[in-house]
Amino acid sequence: MSIRDLARHLDISIGTVSRALNGKADVNQETRERVLEAAKRLGYVPNQSGRSLRQGTTNTIGFMIESTIETVDTGGSFFMPVFEGVQSVFRRHHLDLVALLCGTDEEPAAYLNRVVARRFVDGLIISATTRHDPRIDFLLERKIPFITLGRSETTGDYPWIDLDFEGVATAAVERLAGLGHSRIAIAVPASDINLGYIFLDAYKQALAANGIAFNPDYVFRSYANEEGGYQIAGAVLAQRQTPTAIILVNENMALGLYRRFYESDIHPGRNIAVIGFRESIQSRFLSPTLTCFRISLRDLGIKLAESLLSTMPAYEEHYPHEKVELIWPLELVPGESDQGEL
Amino acid sequence: MSIRDLARHLDISIGTVSRALNGKADVNQETRERVLEAAKRLGYVPNQSGRSLRQGTTNTIGFMIESTIETVDTGGSFFMPVFEGVQSVFRRHHLDLVALLCGTDEEPAAYLNRVVARRFVDGLIISATTRHDPRIDFLLERKIPFITLGRSETTGDYPWIDLDFEGVATAAVERLAGLGHSRIAIAVPASDINLGYIFLDAYKQALAANGIAFNPDYVFRSYANEEGGYQIAGAVLAQRQTPTAIILVNENMALGLYRRFYESDIHPGRNIAVIGFRESIQSRFLSPTLTCFRISLRDLGIKLAESLLSTMPAYEEHYPHEKVELIWPLELVPGESDQGEL
Repeated sequence: MSIRDLARHLDISIGTVSRALNGKADVNQETRERVLEAAKRLGYVPNQSGRSLRQGTTNTIGFMIESTIETVDTGGSFFMPVFEGVQSVFRRHHLDLVALLCGTDEEPAAYLNRVVARRFVDGLIISATTRHDPRIDFLLERKIPFITLGRSETTGDYPWIDLDFEGVATAAVERLAGLGHSRIAIAVPASDINLGYIFLDAYKQALAANGIAFNPDYVFRSYANEEGGYQIAGAVLAQRQTPTAIILVNENMALGLYRRFYESDIHPGRNIAVIGFRESIQSRFLSPTLTCFRISLRDLGIKLAESLLSTMPAYEEHYPHEKVELIWPLELVPGESDQGEL
Repeated sequence: MSIRDLARHLDISIGTVSRALNGKADVNQETRERVLEAAKRLGYVPNQSGRSLRQGTTNTIGFMIESTIETVDTGGSFFMPVFEGVQSVFRRHHLDLVALLCGTDEEPAAYLNRVVARRFVDGLIISATTRHDPRIDFLLERKIPFITLGRSETTGDYPWIDLDFEGVATAAVERLAGLGHSRIAIAVPASDINLGYIFLDAYKQALAANGIAFNPDYVFRSYANEEGGYQIAGAVLAQRQTPTAIILVNENMALGLYRRFYESDIHPGRNIAVIGFRESIQSRFLSPTLTCFRISLRDLGIKLAESLLSTMPAYEEHYPHEKVELIWPLELVPGESDQGEL
């Protein structure tokens, strides 16, 4: 499938097809869409190697994710819908998304260095930012367009989007305090991932704002998955003075927590209030349903993609340049898991 | 970081470093490992564009996955551990894995055509094979090294690995028949994915082998996820003569199925026997625990990677050429969900 075949198929001149594919302004919207749609459907690709050398572009954007022992089983359920949103934007511009998988044994900065040297991406979305993230300095220095999913204390002129961990912790504490709870526990990751600190700090502040003393015995740490939830439930039950409520930093903890409680005949929503983090397909089918927070991961992906493209001159016609520094809100979804009497 | 810097850092000659990086046989094992380890740690990458043009290689392997409405929430939990296994092999050879994400709106064959034209992968792993898969013909014709995860009726000289769906269906029916069940239902995907047909056929054969008549009313179709399990449980309960056991083609169905049964005060393992498909971190924390089948997805990833490399001349020193056509067995993990009395 050459550009000549594509033009013949559409009965449009080669010049017009070429201008449409290259996003020139002098092609009307309808024609552009017809050309892009046909190019996609028929699998047309510009002579890529020649084009890359000429224009220095690959029409490929990388999304770097890290697998860790904790997330290897569950991380996919977060990222797949985000990817879907990112792709829905890239598709308009004939861009492809590749997921760059930094393995568990791999140093993220060295991995990124290598990916960049391979030169097959025009831009990057990076996730799992650390407090001080050398990848940010590296990408700024190389002038490679990127956006981060996750905040960092590394400074510089770059766009980022992060989830509103503070908002979730605050709303959860307020809701439980409003239901009369004062023995409110929190489950955070045992790892030193930045979001764990953010979540714990916000929880402490919200306790103070509601006149509840912070009790370090009520901070439980484990894996951010089902196994971690199971362990934490055991630790909660082992407390001399058992908390009456618990807030989870990760929704995957809920299933294990429920299971461990059931083994001791403790029923979430009846004997202990539970608030999870992100609403997932699972949280709706747990018994009792989990009180948690809603986020459209697809919309998050769309915003990540559009914000990245707004930093790339080739797309500023579509996405005027803006510096995105965005805390993404989550919306409370009341379930049955925190509705018991005290 | 140039090769000169790397050689200086290691205090080894540039020639030796170069030979070690290029996998030449005249470098001893210990030195090779030191060089590769340092190259990885320091993020050294050979001058990729020059190298690619000279050798026609990119040192990048693509793994194509498709997101569908059904799998967007759950597919990641399957693929992430597989990727981890694939990477553990590629790492030894300084190869990177990228996940190629074919979006829901995208024609898989056209997508693959485009990826190949972009020329940033040396080889491919493709999943979600269809009965007749044009991607296989395309890759064979272009002589691009690849392996499929999933069988297809498209013929040709190519390696594949697939899960043993027949073995699972057969073992599940035999187990339930042995426990005295004869009203055994099955839950299969509503889509026309090949594995659904394989699973259903094997179920029918196993019923016959156990002297049980096939009842078309006991075949339930829905989404291969929590939502689908919920719907199917409702349909099971609506049957005039309720099945006493059900086999699920997908483990994610279990949570929704459990929830719907609980709403009608039906307890898996007490009032109805349930056998799930793949053991997951979830299946162990369900109450009751799910009887299901174990597979190491990491080992599956390792075998996929090694089988692919065995078809690539550059790696035949490490992986002697073999034609892999492999049905991957799964091992029964008894749980509590099928232990009730009839």
